[in-house]
Amino acid sequence: MKKIIVDVMSGDKAPRSLVKGVYRASQDFDAEYILVGDKERIEAVAKELNISVEGFDIVHTASVITMEDEPLSITKEKSDSSMAVGLKLLAEGKGDAFVSAGNTGALFAGATLIVKKLKGVKRPAIAALLPMEPPVLLLDSGANISVTPDDLEQFALMGEAYMRDIYGIKSPRVGILNNGAEECKGTPLQLETYKRLSANKNINFVGNVEGNKVTQDACDVLVTDGFTGNIMLKTMEGMGKFALKTIKGIFTTNARTTLAGALVKPYVQNVKKNFDSTELGGAPFLGVTRPVIKAHGSSGSKAFKNAIGQAIAYSESDLSEDICIAMEELNARRRAEKEAAKEKKD
Amino acid sequence: MKKIIVDVMSGDKAPRSLVKGVYRASQDFDAEYILVGDKERIEAVAKELNISVEGFDIVHTASVITMEDEPLSITKEKSDSSMAVGLKLLAEGKGDAFVSAGNTGALFAGATLIVKKLKGVKRPAIAALLPMEPPVLLLDSGANISVTPDDLEQFALMGEAYMRDIYGIKSPRVGILNNGAEECKGTPLQLETYKRLSANKNINFVGNVEGNKVTQDACDVLVTDGFTGNIMLKTMEGMGKFALKTIKGIFTTNARTTLAGALVKPYVQNVKKNFDSTELGGAPFLGVTRPVIKAHGSSGSKAFKNAIGQAIAYSESDLSEDICIAMEELNARRRAEKEAAKEKKD
Repeated sequence: MKKIIVDVMSGDKAPRSLVKGVYRASQDFDAEYILVGDKERIEAVAKELNISVEGFDIVHTASVITMEDEPLSITKEKSDSSMAVGLKLLAEGKGDAFVSAGNTGALFAGATLIVKKLKGVKRPAIAALLPMEPPVLLLDSGANISVTPDDLEQFALMGEAYMRDIYGIKSPRVGILNNGAEECKGTPLQLETYKRLSANKNINFVGNVEGNKVTQDACDVLVTDGFTGNIMLKTMEGMGKFALKTIKGIFTTNARTTLAGALVKPYVQNVKKNFDSTELGGAPFLGVTRPVIKAHGSSGSKAFKNAIGQAIAYSESDLSEDICIAMEELNARRRAEKEAAKEKKD
Repeated sequence: MKKIIVDVMSGDKAPRSLVKGVYRASQDFDAEYILVGDKERIEAVAKELNISVEGFDIVHTASVITMEDEPLSITKEKSDSSMAVGLKLLAEGKGDAFVSAGNTGALFAGATLIVKKLKGVKRPAIAALLPMEPPVLLLDSGANISVTPDDLEQFALMGEAYMRDIYGIKSPRVGILNNGAEECKGTPLQLETYKRLSANKNINFVGNVEGNKVTQDACDVLVTDGFTGNIMLKTMEGMGKFALKTIKGIFTTNARTTLAGALVKPYVQNVKKNFDSTELGGAPFLGVTRPVIKAHGSSGSKAFKNAIGQAIAYSESDLSEDICIAMEELNARRRAEKEAAKEKKD
């Protein structure tokens, strides 16, 4: 049985909703849990919520990384925080995956520095699952503001491994987020990445994908730099909220529309998941030695439970091994190409 | 009375819907019209539509720029196209504004090379009106893939002049599209632009704006490079369509929801405009000597009519003069700063 390490102190609704989320996960999923945080507060909210935390290990620490803390504080003044302690437990093999709803920058720094990168990975990425049907994995979604074509090729391989191993898609379609579909579009980053992905036989490359095509099942994996990925992800989030608000607005206009609202209520509930990425879990970190999942900062118990479910699926998969194999293959090919180019020159 | 030059041959629904759009505009707005295109085809669709084009000037040309043509074809092999001829008429002062639903790259190249840049403008921009309430002007939205902080400062001034002159906003709030709200966020482009806009007393600068805040009335003008602007614009377009499709889907699930749909139909019609930017018109080009409006490629008669209405408003305003004044002031200040720095050095 997998053991999931959970930071229950970081995030907008910590610790109450997060402790409740772990409890809900324990009801739904077959796993063990280590809760990292202030033991007294965890026990107090459990009492308030009338749930038992007796079946969970609790590792006590009173320190918490806030949203204002610098990313690198995780290895310095906040090395005793719930996030840092949890990552250290993961790195030591005391658990199989780690989930936190805290400061993304600190979690990324900690995942890279404490859990460490997988062999052959230049830069780990934060991947976001866009709540389409089927979902689209967007990476990088904010950690790596500027990247190289080398990075994007690695992101493509890591992303397609994720969709294969976790979502069971046989040959995930990989696209480059771009300002036009044609090969000639984009900045030098997109132009060079296009060449690389076209030439890589291990990638089912479907070309450039425009922002308006992402909602139209154009690809399973979408690669981009973290700046653009963040803009797209948050624009979708904003538009999703705006759409739900607009739908709700229709049904509260007058008595007639309120009646209509009552008639369609279950169906509106049902489409909510298309505008809310937390239904799918959190954002997986790809390229680190063990599974780290970033739950949304505003996670309630359900979103946090979903992120835990995703952590379990990640830890039960062969994803890390598969990423290692893909990186080894890629790097061997790159070395061979370099040597061939050198020989040609000599 | 203003005279609007209209390219009725370019775009997905040309010439039929565009001729109809001009006709609808002529019913709604007080203006004169020059239609540029294939005279025989224009008269044929007018007959089909049972409308009269007798009140319009028609300037005949059989050549059309397609979506596949290179941008620079407008001054070369396609210099006799409806778009090129229309822009030349505008440059010669035969009309007060130009509207086209054709190839954006060609229209931008033509606007820059034929209509010419306003004095002091380094790079004209294509501004897009995001259909929020109130609307947000996003620039650049795709013409200038990579830009400098100088460009973004000019975009900020041009954009705020637009929202002041056309939308009557006294002191438009200007934001930088960024991956976080903090001053330290973004690439060197955003960091340097932040400094510039903070220091510019003629700009009501509200700081960095994240993708999910654009739908929340965070600013009136949002500046960014054309790559990122294009990704945001198209993501919004895609999500808007996805939202409308989802709403429609609810109301066609079964008899019960169909009844609900009938009850709310007028309200759903009403919210459509929040997801459809063509309700507000087209995309104005800022920084060229005369008004050029890019209507959406898929414009039907209503969207095209709206773009014409926007062209009239633009041509009746003092926008070009106001942009010139702003550029002169900015460039004078830059020169003074440079001289002061030089003197200090000497």
